[in-house]
Amino acid sequence: MRTIDWDYEKNNIIMIDQTLLPAEYRIIECSTIESLCEAIISLRVRGAPALGAAGGFGVALSAFKSNASSLDALIKNIENAGKTLIATRPTAVNLSWGVKRVIRAMEDARNIKETRMFALDEAKAIADEDVKKNMQLGEYGASLLEDGDTVLTHCNAGRLACVDWGTALGVIRSARADGKDIKVIACETRPLNQGSRRETRPLNQGSRLTTWELMEDKIPVTLITDSMSGHVMRKGMVDKVIVGADRITQDAVFNKIGTYTHSIIAKEHGIPFYVAAPVSTFDFERLEDDVEIEIRKPQELRFFGNRQIAPLDVDVYNPAFDATPMENVTGIITENGIFYPPFLIDEVKIRV
Amino acid sequence: MRTIDWDYEKNNIIMIDQTLLPAEYRIIECSTIESLCEAIISLRVRGAPALGAAGGFGVALSAFKSNASSLDALIKNIENAGKTLIATRPTAVNLSWGVKRVIRAMEDARNIKETRMFALDEAKAIADEDVKKNMQLGEYGASLLEDGDTVLTHCNAGRLACVDWGTALGVIRSARADGKDIKVIACETRPLNQGSRRETRPLNQGSRLTTWELMEDKIPVTLITDSMSGHVMRKGMVDKVIVGADRITQDAVFNKIGTYTHSIIAKEHGIPFYVAAPVSTFDFERLEDDVEIEIRKPQELRFFGNRQIAPLDVDVYNPAFDATPMENVTGIITENGIFYPPFLIDEVKIRV
Repeated sequence: MRTIDWDYEKNNIIMIDQTLLPAEYRIIECSTIESLCEAIISLRVRGAPALGAAGGFGVALSAFKSNASSLDALIKNIENAGKTLIATRPTAVNLSWGVKRVIRAMEDARNIKETRMFALDEAKAIADEDVKKNMQLGEYGASLLEDGDTVLTHCNAGRLACVDWGTALGVIRSARADGKDIKVIACETRPLNQGSRRETRPLNQGSRLTTWELMEDKIPVTLITDSMSGHVMRKGMVDKVIVGADRITQDAVFNKIGTYTHSIIAKEHGIPFYVAAPVSTFDFERLEDDVEIEIRKPQELRFFGNRQIAPLDVDVYNPAFDATPMENVTGIITENGIFYPPFLIDEVKIRV
Repeated sequence: MRTIDWDYEKNNIIMIDQTLLPAEYRIIECSTIESLCEAIISLRVRGAPALGAAGGFGVALSAFKSNASSLDALIKNIENAGKTLIATRPTAVNLSWGVKRVIRAMEDARNIKETRMFALDEAKAIADEDVKKNMQLGEYGASLLEDGDTVLTHCNAGRLACVDWGTALGVIRSARADGKDIKVIACETRPLNQGSRRETRPLNQGSRLTTWELMEDKIPVTLITDSMSGHVMRKGMVDKVIVGADRITQDAVFNKIGTYTHSIIAKEHGIPFYVAAPVSTFDFERLEDDVEIEIRKPQELRFFGNRQIAPLDVDVYNPAFDATPMENVTGIITENGIFYPPFLIDEVKIRV
């Protein structure tokens, strides 16, 4: 099933609980806004596109579950639910975008029934558009891969971060769908220990999520530590690198910490380094220096789960992202085609 | 205290139990060959130079604890103990070297008392020589560091791998002893989960050992993941890289996996990349291609301690070491001075 979807029988949200992977594959149901908020906060659903769908479906959920007897009361309920949802992850732009888009779509509804219908249709449209966009992106990207290629990737730019198909991993799925034999090397992607205040939970999105979703699709994948990318590229084991992106400025690609290191190694060995991301990732108003990199908690490197792996008071530097300068990027694969740096901003604007 | 030493009151071996660090600092005593073997197998003591001393002290221990009433019987006991010791880690060259050197030193002993004295003197000499060698190496290396430098290091080439002082970290200690203000960035060094058959135990020698021993000596240290080396070097946070070595051939330096990646990043940013290792690490009869790299178990990447972090049946590539070609190495710091590639083999031979 998709990462997140709607159960038309019960009118609930259903999703894959990503905190349990890969040890357990469990579909959870959210029948209240409270349970959806908990799922978002606990990262049971994560990834910008998936959160957009979560926001949209969340608004639909509040429309279906409200006991309001008048349209005005229903709209009030929905707007409150929307605010509660957005507050769960205030920096997740897609979440609030999804909430607002669905609320806007209900504006012309004339009664409670129509409101519910309009909301659900729009939420479903967000999810469907995401899948379609990734499949277009995947098709463009697939043209870059040759039969027999091995692709190194970092973190999880896969279907679990989206509604389905994925970006970097979507390119691989599309190439496989074209009949090409593609193998993947997945970096485990340290550290990202998420979790509640009481416990840190290791996420290692490469080892936990990327390997799992590729194995589900029977795509051959080999897991390595992040530090091994130099060794495997030197040994000729990698034909291309494809990673996702959190934000793309005019001069740099921001992505999970470690991406820049892989880009240097790829350049050293003459291996193409591609970024796969929807055009909504472009932020061409800004330059690298305008973007502040989130510094995460030291505990992520001092503990693994609840196991201490460093002195409790050791100084830690834990940036969540790094910036890869555009000169290290061979091309950016989007649903509107492939862009090759240096960007001709006007051309990009036309196509975006 | 030293990593491993002799207790002259009880005639026992004492050592820091490295499997408990950094959560607990505990000195353990070995009063029997059996307990020493257990300590070696469980990696309570590890690192080539430290194992050399463990072998030497082990022979002395067997001489002191034997109940033999004749010199011949004593020698027989000692030889058996030596074989038992060597069998604990058959590929650890230094361990058997230490055992054999001390057994040889007892050959001229005329009675039981002299045998014990000769054995202990020789074991102590091995330990003392190791410290002296590292301090000489450290002095050469310190000349390369400037006041205010920040040094990035990988794995643990510190005093815990030796009897005291360390190689890469010995250079930093010597520079600090010269009054220079040196800071360290330590990479956590994935994966190396060691342990018994029933449990894997995370070692991460950077986060667990390097940080601990530097903090004990009040040397400022910041912990990062291995993947962050690109980001920190790009941000100008690193002045020099210093790593240890497991083996140095004519054309390459073999060291803990991830070292090669750091060497590329350093080269990209014009940062000097030094290797610190005693001349006993040189293996100039061989080339890189003659050396087989140990491939370790997949479980090291599938589990962290007893926590599953990847699909149980995911394919894993887990080389323990990588090779850094000599063109990436600025210099090799030894107790006989600093060697600059390309090596003039004859000159090296004279100085080694």
